[in-house]
Formats: sequence, C-alpha cells, structure tokens
Amino acid sequence: MSTEGFHYEVIAEDGPARAGRFVTPHAVIETPVFMPVGTQGTVKTQTTEEVAATGARIILANTYHLMLRPTAELVAQLGGIRRFMGWPHALLTDSGGYQVFSLTGLRSIDDGGVVFRSHLDGSKHALTPERAMEIQGLLGSSIAMVLDECPPGAAERSVIEQAVRRSTMWAKRCLAYPRPPEQACFGIVQGGVHADIRRAHLAELAELPFDGIAMGGFSVGEPIETMYSLLSELAPTMPRERPRYLMGVGKPIDLLRSVGSGIDMFDCVLPTRNARNAQALTWGGRVNLKQARHTADEAPLDARCDCPVCKKHSRAYLRHLIRAQEILGIRLVTQHNLSFYAALMRAARTAIIEGRYAAFAAEAEARMLAEDEIGGPS
Amino acid sequence: MSTEGFHYEVIAEDGPARAGRFVTPHAVIETPVFMPVGTQGTVKTQTTEEVAATGARIILANTYHLMLRPTAELVAQLGGIRRFMGWPHALLTDSGGYQVFSLTGLRSIDDGGVVFRSHLDGSKHALTPERAMEIQGLLGSSIAMVLDECPPGAAERSVIEQAVRRSTMWAKRCLAYPRPPEQACFGIVQGGVHADIRRAHLAELAELPFDGIAMGGFSVGEPIETMYSLLSELAPTMPRERPRYLMGVGKPIDLLRSVGSGIDMFDCVLPTRNARNAQALTWGGRVNLKQARHTADEAPLDARCDCPVCKKHSRAYLRHLIRAQEILGIRLVTQHNLSFYAALMRAARTAIIEGRYAAFAAEAEARMLAEDEIGGPS
Repeated sequence: MSTEGFHYEVIAEDGPARAGRFVTPHAVIETPVFMPVGTQGTVKTQTTEEVAATGARIILANTYHLMLRPTAELVAQLGGIRRFMGWPHALLTDSGGYQVFSLTGLRSIDDGGVVFRSHLDGSKHALTPERAMEIQGLLGSSIAMVLDECPPGAAERSVIEQAVRRSTMWAKRCLAYPRPPEQACFGIVQGGVHADIRRAHLAELAELPFDGIAMGGFSVGEPIETMYSLLSELAPTMPRERPRYLMGVGKPIDLLRSVGSGIDMFDCVLPTRNARNAQALTWGGRVNLKQARHTADEAPLDARCDCPVCKKHSRAYLRHLIRAQEILGIRLVTQHNLSFYAALMRAARTAIIEGRYAAFAAEAEARMLAEDEIGGPS
Repeated sequence: MSTEGFHYEVIAEDGPARAGRFVTPHAVIETPVFMPVGTQGTVKTQTTEEVAATGARIILANTYHLMLRPTAELVAQLGGIRRFMGWPHALLTDSGGYQVFSLTGLRSIDDGGVVFRSHLDGSKHALTPERAMEIQGLLGSSIAMVLDECPPGAAERSVIEQAVRRSTMWAKRCLAYPRPPEQACFGIVQGGVHADIRRAHLAELAELPFDGIAMGGFSVGEPIETMYSLLSELAPTMPRERPRYLMGVGKPIDLLRSVGSGIDMFDCVLPTRNARNAQALTWGGRVNLKQARHTADEAPLDARCDCPVCKKHSRAYLRHLIRAQEILGIRLVTQHNLSFYAALMRAARTAIIEGRYAAFAAEAEARMLAEDEIGGPS
C-alpha cells in the first residue's frame, strides 16, 4: 500500500474468503466490513454514537450531495466532514460520479469530465477527476474514490469499452492530484457484465499505486446471479495485499456470497432505506412491520440479535410506531438493521478465521430464505 | 392525598413559589417539573433513555390517540403503556376530553358524555366519565385525569357556567370509578377567563379526594397576560398539600411566571413541536436554525447548556441537517429543547430553595427576551 498510515493485512483465508485488518489513521477496520451510508453527513436518523455502538468504524459519505449542500468549502472551513458531523473514526467518500451519472438528461460528458445540473436548484457544476479529488480533499475523508464513468447497466459493449478507457485515464489523473495527509485513494474497476473487459480493467488498475481496489457498476439492473458469477471469477484475482471493495451492494445474502468470493468491504443504503419502509433485516430474513401479524407480538425483531432495540422493544410496539408514523419507529428499525449488518460481518469474519466459512454462509442463507416473511425479490 | 403510594410534600416556599417532592409508585418527582408529551406512546423522535437522561421522571401520553390506535385494550394486553413503550418512570394520561372537544363538528355532548368520530377513520366512539377512567386504567398510567368539558376560549359566560357544572358532576363520577392500584387521579378546574367561576369550581373540587388539582382551559386563545393575572390570583389558593398542575402551558417565560404563582407541574408540546420546526429554546431565547446567520457558526445552540447536543454539535451542523431535511436534525433539537426545559425547572427549584426565585425569574426572563433572535410572539 502506498499511502502513509494505511496498512492492510490478511489475517486468515478460507477458500477465497479472507479475514483482514485494515489499519487507517482514523480507525482500525476489521474485514469483512459493511460501511453504513451517511449520504448528507449523517447516517439517516442515527447519531454517530449509535452508529459506532453497532461496531462500525468506517462509514461512507456522498461527495455529490455534500458538494452541493453545504458545499465542500464550508465543510473544510468547519474542520472536515468527520469533525463537522462528529464522527471520530474512518470515513470513505465516493467521487460523486455515480450520482451524477444517474442524473439522466442533466449532464454532458467528455474526456475532461462531466458537467451537470444540481437536483436541488438546477445550478450548473463540473466534476473533473481533479475537482473530484479536490472536493474529497476538502471534505477530508480517510479514503477518496477515483472519478469513474458508470455507464447504464444495459449499455452496449462499445459504450462500456469507451467508459473503461476513460475511467483508466481519469484514475491516473486522480492519483496524480495531491491529496491531504491521512487520505488514501482507491481505484474502481468497471466493465459491466463483460468478464473480459473487467479483467483487463482490473489488470490496468492493479498496476497503479492505489491503496485498495473497488468493483463498481454492479447492482445496476443485471441479474444477481450474473454478479455472483463475475465476482467468483474476478474477486480472487484482485490484488491480495490490498482491500477489495464491492460498491453499493447489497442484501445480506449478497454480502455472504461476495465475502465467499474474497470481497472485504461493502456499502449499501439498504439497511437504512428499508428501515424507513418498515422493513427489518434479520437472521431470519426480512420482517415487514406493516403486517398485521405483528399487532400483539411481544417478540423482538430478532431473538438472535443483541442490539439495544431487540433487547428492549416488541414487534408490537415497533409496528405501532410505524403505523402512527412516529419517527422513533424508523429510527429504531434503522438501528437494528445496522446492528444486524455489523453482526453478520463479524460472524462471517469469525467463521473465516475458524475455517468454516462455506458452512456458515450456507446455513445463514438457508435460514434467511426459509424464514423470510415477505417472499419474492426485495 | 388519598391514593396509596402517592405523597406530595412542600420542601421550600419562596413567596407563592414552591419547591416540592411528589412521591409516586413509579418515580419520585421533584417539582416544579415539566412533563414531556408522548402523545402516541413516544416522546416524538426520542428514546425513553434520552428522555430520562434529561432528568425527566414523568411524561404525558394522550388517551384520545392511544384509545384509537393501538387501542387501550391492546396496550393493556401488552402490560400497560409504561411497559409497552419501555418507560419505567411515572406517566400521566389526560382524559381524552381536550382532543375530543377540539374535533369541531365531529361530536355531540350531553350530561352522559361525548360521542365523536375518529380523525383516523371516521369510526364512532363514546367517551363518558366512566369510559375515560376505564381507558386510563387499561393504559395503566400513574396519574389519570378526570374527563371535563373544555368550552372554546371565546365561549359565552353561560356556556362556561354550564361546562363547569357538568365538569364537577363528571369529576365525581370519575372519582367513583374503580382505578387500578398505583393510579392517582387529578381534578381539573375550568372557568375560562372568569375568576369568580374558576374560584367557585376550585372550591368544589378541592373538597373532593383528588391527589392533585389541575388548571385547565388556558392557552386556548386568551391574552397571555390574562392567564398570568388569573394564575397569580388563583394558584396560591389551590390546596397547599397537593400538587398543582397547569395543563398545556407553555413557553419558557410562561413556566417562570406560573412557578412564581405557585404552580408545580406543566406539560406542553412546544419543546418537541417547535424542534420539528427548526426552533431551539435556550437560556438566550429562541434560535431559528433556518436563519442563514448560522451557516458557518461553530457555536452550540446554547453555550450555557450542558446537554449532549450542545456539548457536541455546532449550529452549522444542525442547520445543515435541518436544510437537508435529515431526521437527525429535529431529533437533536428536540433532545436539546427537552434538556433545556428540564434544566429551567431544576434552576427554578434551586432558586426557590435558596429564597431568590423572583430575582432568578426576572433575570432569566430578561435575558430570554433580550437575546431572542426571532422577535414577536412565538
């Protein structure tokens, strides 16, 4: 690893799965790890103390949202995003690219970068590789991500090849841009569902002095089995001595599968977003608090969970809060969901260290599917 | 006091102001006290641990809301409202009357009780003195309030006289209804802005074995000076040996004035509701986080406050959360506001015990008015 203060080490391997320790200047992160998403400088509904109490030592914030409001310059003036929001541990920022490329019709792109209009007020902004790094420097995140081009999931092969060519060029420009001390930089592999394009892109990026390598462009509409298949082929070939990050994924079972292929780091809005939709994630699959079956149920969300919510509150009370549209309801379900994701990753890590990961993952997955009370795709 | 397990004692007097100790089976409550409002079985946005951390040992819940959803019968099945919501301390329920009488056009009333339609689904419900007590018994609150008739603030004198006559009759029927163990009952004085009607009503209720006496029907549109004037005349004549409760009031200055007249207990949605409107209450008056002046302000909401929010977060961050419509923003401002109200009552109590209440209240009021950044009526 090339940035001072950052060090990743594999602690144990069990097939392609790895347990590791990622030392950063702001936290020691035990992997595999799930990073809660704090889009606008807060993990939605939670205090930083609550997030840390789940065991999380790294969270994610979104460059796109913060550059528009309150602006990267203001955050820098107030001591950086970690100080601004009161999060003493590690924090990763994305480059803003993913959100900008989701603004269909609001952007123009060339080799220089991308011009887009704010979803807040229509104001015009530019994101170049250099500006993306400058903003992340102002935000003062522990880990900056390169600006990459994220073509739509259904894009033609030639469009994806062009995006990968541009992404490699941009990745080099990002690396060349000066970063503040205590900030690492990760590269991002694109290539859609084409194994050969991803393989070639990975090879290009692996030669550059990135502190970690991410897989981007998944969970954009492709069949989930395609992602599993690509990861099982490609993840084991990612550099062994650097953290491997799968961006924007996913469901608990997706995490189990991806850890099984050798992925170390994850982020996803699912545990926080689904909580706001009354859905709890548990060792027994999904629980939908809108269902009448919970009306008088004194059981916790998950009897196997030792989070503060499961230790104290009944499904009946949580369902009442949700029905009454009380903020405390989504707050408590969010707290549980983040606790469960953290516990899932800790259990995976222990299983890897003890050399029983495949059995652990198969059993956990089977139980989630068997007990899931919703059915069908999430 | 007549109910076993309840005992009120005056600790100190300073003019009409009193410091007391209200012993209940579920908490010892130091007075004067502000009771946070937990309308639907939650103090909005807050956990019970956070509410207790402000120093609160008694909160309020609304019979009207809980009888409709999730229903008093379900709450009883789940162990009562305190167990249902996980609040181990004392809890007071109103009778539901106030909300029902606010449902203009949705009710009919006679000496038997009141019939109304739910604001949720239009279903028809009846509230009689006996049913109001039965529901509060099912909810299992520490203190039940009698059902009373609350005429509009602008009602004719004859309408108010009729309401007071009916309220006394209902109060006796409420007292005659069997209560669960560990539940006290308070009477409510009505009479609008008519001192003579209130004086007579108070005399009637004072003869009955209530555990406390409340002043109802204030803060319903009358000039605030009228309330101050009536309280300064009437509060000192309320039974000395029982707690005196001013219902639904109010602003910090209203509390200071009313304590000065001899009131012991308060409830109001203001600190929780105004928080959801970006307004913080502080020793320096109101702070409106929507104002641009806070954009880069590293100061806490109130440098004189030692609540967790003021110890950790800047106005700039709180303003950002509010602007970004993040729930954490209203959550943190609510936590501060409740902490401030609790601190205000503690400071008042200390001043009474030390015999300097008038100076304390005058100074606090002057500072709030001088530094208030909003101006005009709240």
